[in-house]
Amino acid sequence: MSEAYVGLESVKWNNGQVDLLDQRLLPEEVVYLPLTTQKDVWEAIRHLKVRGAPAIGIAAAYGVVIASQQAATTEEWLDAVQQSAQYLATSRPTAVNLFWALDRMKAAADQFIAQGFSLADCKKALEQEAIAIQQQDEQTNRAIGEYALSLFKEDMGVLTHCNAGGLATAKYGTALAPFYIAKERGINLRVYADETRPVLQGARLTAFELQQAGVDVTLICDNMAGMVMSKGWVDAVIVGTDRVAANGDVANKIGTYSVAVLAKAHGIPFYVACPLSTIDLNTPTGAEIPIEERPDEEITEGFGKRTAPKGVKVYNPAFDVTPNEYVTGIITEKGIVTAPYEENLRKLFEQ
Amino acid sequence: MSEAYVGLESVKWNNGQVDLLDQRLLPEEVVYLPLTTQKDVWEAIRHLKVRGAPAIGIAAAYGVVIASQQAATTEEWLDAVQQSAQYLATSRPTAVNLFWALDRMKAAADQFIAQGFSLADCKKALEQEAIAIQQQDEQTNRAIGEYALSLFKEDMGVLTHCNAGGLATAKYGTALAPFYIAKERGINLRVYADETRPVLQGARLTAFELQQAGVDVTLICDNMAGMVMSKGWVDAVIVGTDRVAANGDVANKIGTYSVAVLAKAHGIPFYVACPLSTIDLNTPTGAEIPIEERPDEEITEGFGKRTAPKGVKVYNPAFDVTPNEYVTGIITEKGIVTAPYEENLRKLFEQ
Repeated sequence: MSEAYVGLESVKWNNGQVDLLDQRLLPEEVVYLPLTTQKDVWEAIRHLKVRGAPAIGIAAAYGVVIASQQAATTEEWLDAVQQSAQYLATSRPTAVNLFWALDRMKAAADQFIAQGFSLADCKKALEQEAIAIQQQDEQTNRAIGEYALSLFKEDMGVLTHCNAGGLATAKYGTALAPFYIAKERGINLRVYADETRPVLQGARLTAFELQQAGVDVTLICDNMAGMVMSKGWVDAVIVGTDRVAANGDVANKIGTYSVAVLAKAHGIPFYVACPLSTIDLNTPTGAEIPIEERPDEEITEGFGKRTAPKGVKVYNPAFDVTPNEYVTGIITEKGIVTAPYEENLRKLFEQ
Repeated sequence: MSEAYVGLESVKWNNGQVDLLDQRLLPEEVVYLPLTTQKDVWEAIRHLKVRGAPAIGIAAAYGVVIASQQAATTEEWLDAVQQSAQYLATSRPTAVNLFWALDRMKAAADQFIAQGFSLADCKKALEQEAIAIQQQDEQTNRAIGEYALSLFKEDMGVLTHCNAGGLATAKYGTALAPFYIAKERGINLRVYADETRPVLQGARLTAFELQQAGVDVTLICDNMAGMVMSKGWVDAVIVGTDRVAANGDVANKIGTYSVAVLAKAHGIPFYVACPLSTIDLNTPTGAEIPIEERPDEEITEGFGKRTAPKGVKVYNPAFDVTPNEYVTGIITEKGIVTAPYEENLRKLFEQ
């Protein structure tokens, strides 16, 4: 039995400002950046200082608090909330938690106004709303972790891609939550972490946070996943997601689709772990999820050194979509959903 | 119609020494290293300054010439040839061309002795043998390119992994040869180059040499191959190989197996291009091909910067094996071999 997991916090609310762990500098440096304006928050999301769908939602919620805290009247305040939510929504197109958190903040604000709250109470209640989003994320992830762990047994090998860990959320992570709970209970799992080019979230973040927690983690390059599977070392794949469509198609970090196809070819189950807030019933299929393309330099000079010829044509999608047929189960805080996804995801929300 | 392909030469025989293009510095620097001892040659192969199965064979052949050129008697000379061949064979375990070239040099030396050549003639003839290996490689690759190009049509998308180009051979390359010939004939092909972690031969070498030649090449991360295939952009995959077993199993740069599985899942043909000297009928299946594991640092601090936590466990196989069932065809200088490989590869050698 090990001690309970205590990870680095990715987003800290510090008396009117966000202290944000700059994930681009990990694992070499642990630096918290003070974000004091909504523009700071926008840029932190945009430039991947904060990443992971839940953490982005949390940071954005605090961004709305920051943007509205100087308002002089309730009208000005509501205006600031709405404008800020609209502005922050433009920071990343794929992450549906971002929109979910911003919508929740807007709805809360509307409610406070409808209830006739004073300006001071509006501000205080909205701050509490953002804090609640963060706290609930932790509970949600713990629940996801418990459901996920029910699928794993002692000594199983589990492969993950990108970082859906504590650094991507309030705590525990989604896809990594079962590893932390397993560790607490003395259950040994062998984790394979894809390094996840081009930004290396797997190498820099997943390997780092699992190593810190004493989880048995082996770092591999993305292109080794097939070989590791063919050796029989992988019993399951688990990943996070930026958005699940109503039909169960899953958008996640580029490379997830390749892993899913490889898993299927090797008869290995492929699980997606996410809170309900990542599931968007208003997006019918993966085809409607916008896929962000990012700058060439992430690939050509990502290691502080140019590693490709100047002027070479580059394709750099940040995400891909894994069709539902590759998804063995979607693990949420309300349980594990399996196919048919259109029907079963709808039922989950109707509960 | 474009002009004929002129690429950088990877190995130049320069009057008793090898001038070797240091491929680790590409694409940023073009530096030729003078190799004046067999140890220099061994280290250049070991440390990936020269890579690519045919180029390794060529460099090793010259290494034998260097090692034997100071011999004072024919006995000493033959001894030096044999010892040098044995020593150089230890530089990389997977590349069968290395052994093929060394065996050819040893057989030639035996023959010169048997024919009663003088010491001076032995030395001269052995140098000629190494030069012939290099020259024949160029002709071989041109023939491979012609056969490969017969499979491709105007505007097709072709994905390749690692570097089996001019830099890996005497000229043209194996897998890249059809692109150069297509360019000469004004046939447009769209090439997708996997960057090929950890050493980035795709980004640094393939993208570089194709761009230099004016071929339409797009660089992607290895984990994007699945997405690019799912978009319908890829009509074929072509790769080189370090060794083909008698049953058609193919050892090649790590990640090749993942590409092959992805290609099969998308109904895309997967071709392997290589000279006959890469096919080893003495290796029954891929299971008998030794897979070199390389230092962790290639993954954790590959480009002058640490990108993974210190002390993290790493798995870094340099190669993987693609079972014959994934191989649509093996393109050689004698034609294209298809399944059943065991029978058809044997027939190829009996011709």
